[in-house]
Amino acid sequence: MKPYVLGIDIGGTNTVIGIVDARGAVIASASIKTAKHANIEDYIDDLYHEASRIIEANDAQDKINGIGIGAPNSNYFTGTIVDGVNLPWPTPIPLARLVSEKFGIPVAITNDANAAAIGEMTYGAARGLKDFIMITLGTGVGSGIVINGQVVYGHDGLAGELGHLIVKRNNGRLCGCGRTGCLEAYCSATGVARTAREFLEIRTEESSLRNLEIDKITSKDVYDAAINGDKLAQDIFEYTGTILGESLADMMTFSSPAAFILFGGLAKSGELLLKPLRNALEKNLMVCYKGKPKVLLSELKEADAAVLGASALGWEAKPLDAPAVPQASTLVVAAQ
Amino acid sequence: MKPYVLGIDIGGTNTVIGIVDARGAVIASASIKTAKHANIEDYIDDLYHEASRIIEANDAQDKINGIGIGAPNSNYFTGTIVDGVNLPWPTPIPLARLVSEKFGIPVAITNDANAAAIGEMTYGAARGLKDFIMITLGTGVGSGIVINGQVVYGHDGLAGELGHLIVKRNNGRLCGCGRTGCLEAYCSATGVARTAREFLEIRTEESSLRNLEIDKITSKDVYDAAINGDKLAQDIFEYTGTILGESLADMMTFSSPAAFILFGGLAKSGELLLKPLRNALEKNLMVCYKGKPKVLLSELKEADAAVLGASALGWEAKPLDAPAVPQASTLVVAAQ
Repeated sequence: MKPYVLGIDIGGTNTVIGIVDARGAVIASASIKTAKHANIEDYIDDLYHEASRIIEANDAQDKINGIGIGAPNSNYFTGTIVDGVNLPWPTPIPLARLVSEKFGIPVAITNDANAAAIGEMTYGAARGLKDFIMITLGTGVGSGIVINGQVVYGHDGLAGELGHLIVKRNNGRLCGCGRTGCLEAYCSATGVARTAREFLEIRTEESSLRNLEIDKITSKDVYDAAINGDKLAQDIFEYTGTILGESLADMMTFSSPAAFILFGGLAKSGELLLKPLRNALEKNLMVCYKGKPKVLLSELKEADAAVLGASALGWEAKPLDAPAVPQASTLVVAAQ
Repeated sequence: MKPYVLGIDIGGTNTVIGIVDARGAVIASASIKTAKHANIEDYIDDLYHEASRIIEANDAQDKINGIGIGAPNSNYFTGTIVDGVNLPWPTPIPLARLVSEKFGIPVAITNDANAAAIGEMTYGAARGLKDFIMITLGTGVGSGIVINGQVVYGHDGLAGELGHLIVKRNNGRLCGCGRTGCLEAYCSATGVARTAREFLEIRTEESSLRNLEIDKITSKDVYDAAINGDKLAQDIFEYTGTILGESLADMMTFSSPAAFILFGGLAKSGELLLKPLRNALEKNLMVCYKGKPKVLLSELKEADAAVLGASALGWEAKPLDAPAVPQASTLVVAAQ
């Protein structure tokens, strides 16, 4: 096997490219603007140009085993971005095929939360675990589910959308997915900001958050206030952690993971979030699961995490002439 | 491989034993009373005696490939019944070891819902499916989850308790598991009877159910009334099917199964249950899943279903000297 993989993390604003070795060290990285390209071909030309630059600078020609791509709404089975709301090009985009043809290297793609789970299993907090659930707490809530050492893709490649479990069946908040009451509407960074606005309107007590323009409050503002002892801000984290913990207890009835691994901005809130989360999880578990699931924080270095996660897929990417139908025993399928 | 397996379904009242061939035909069956035995050794002696009788009568000595057992609260990894509330013997019971030593044949055990899922995959409605969820609607609600052709056991052998997903977070009904608001408290046969009592107390309209002694109403009574046009009884099925459909939509975000397969007494309510269920499922699905999951009824012959499900495990049972730690590539582990 060749010594490096290329990890590509496609975000709405930036696309980050990294050359990664087998121990998870990022040898070199680069980035391009995602949205400035009028069409997908120009974008891939630019991607190829930047990647080639760092590959050549590190003398890594012919040393790239595979390319792993993390991209929103992407389907691992088909290698396609099915509906990229934050991307400027018409969908579906046969991304794995396009990149593979351009680079001449096997490509596998999956969504960013699955990529994070694979990265954590390959280089991070989930090394040695065969059953765990990765929860990414960013602008939204994503998830990557690993059962018996394999990422769960479902019958259509779109499994693992636990940010869209319904946590409030009636009068729930409107979610970006068009439904109401999703976990994501409460336990994402934007969910925390929404809770802040709700609490500030409903409640009357003093809070330093009242000094801020209410429509511009961010989860970071709430964190800062809570750390400084603001009771209302602390209550917002209590509320958020409790909903997340209740939801993890439900997830336990599904696949009984050994651990939940939290990743993303909100996960860095520490005990503000973790304490109510652990309390609610333990309180809501069925008796047979009590005391079992660990709640861990990601061990991937934050700056590199997205690229590392994506890159981990590159170790198992298969060339274009591999079979299109996924095999039970393989993780990765090339695009056709 | 030898031509037969022995399926054993252990219920609180009866234990049913069947000799099954590779196509799912029950060659012969027998049953013993579960609870009449003062200790587990006597029970296993009786089991052995009855099984030997039908094995000899069918000239099947040395033709049994393995024994599969479906039993409540049993752990596939350890071969143990961990907490058998309806069984008269102290737990844990190392059942796989005890039966294997008595019969000299490899044994695998799992809970009845997982057994039903394996049976459906081997002989029934799930033949050819690699991703599906079996929901058993009996006195309780059980589940067997199959992902990529493998039953999900979780890190501890106890995964797949979807009857205990919380469907009502506040003021939910008390469940047998000690928590409140579980799916099982609403969508089991007993849940339907509880809904009947609730509706009869809360609502004022006429219903033939009012002619019955309220504490003795069963789901069968509700079914009979609904079939005869009783509006309140029909509303009870509407309520039950809607909750189940909403819950299946949540399960879809987990493993995106190609189908949900319903099994058990309540599943035989036909369109009374299925129509509101399908409506609620489709209405509550995320856009990316809409139109995808099928809702199927079990195709296992009812009288034989439990034994067939258990027996299917017998095809992959391993002898006692097989490794204790489950391998990613194997379904079944013998008790140690």
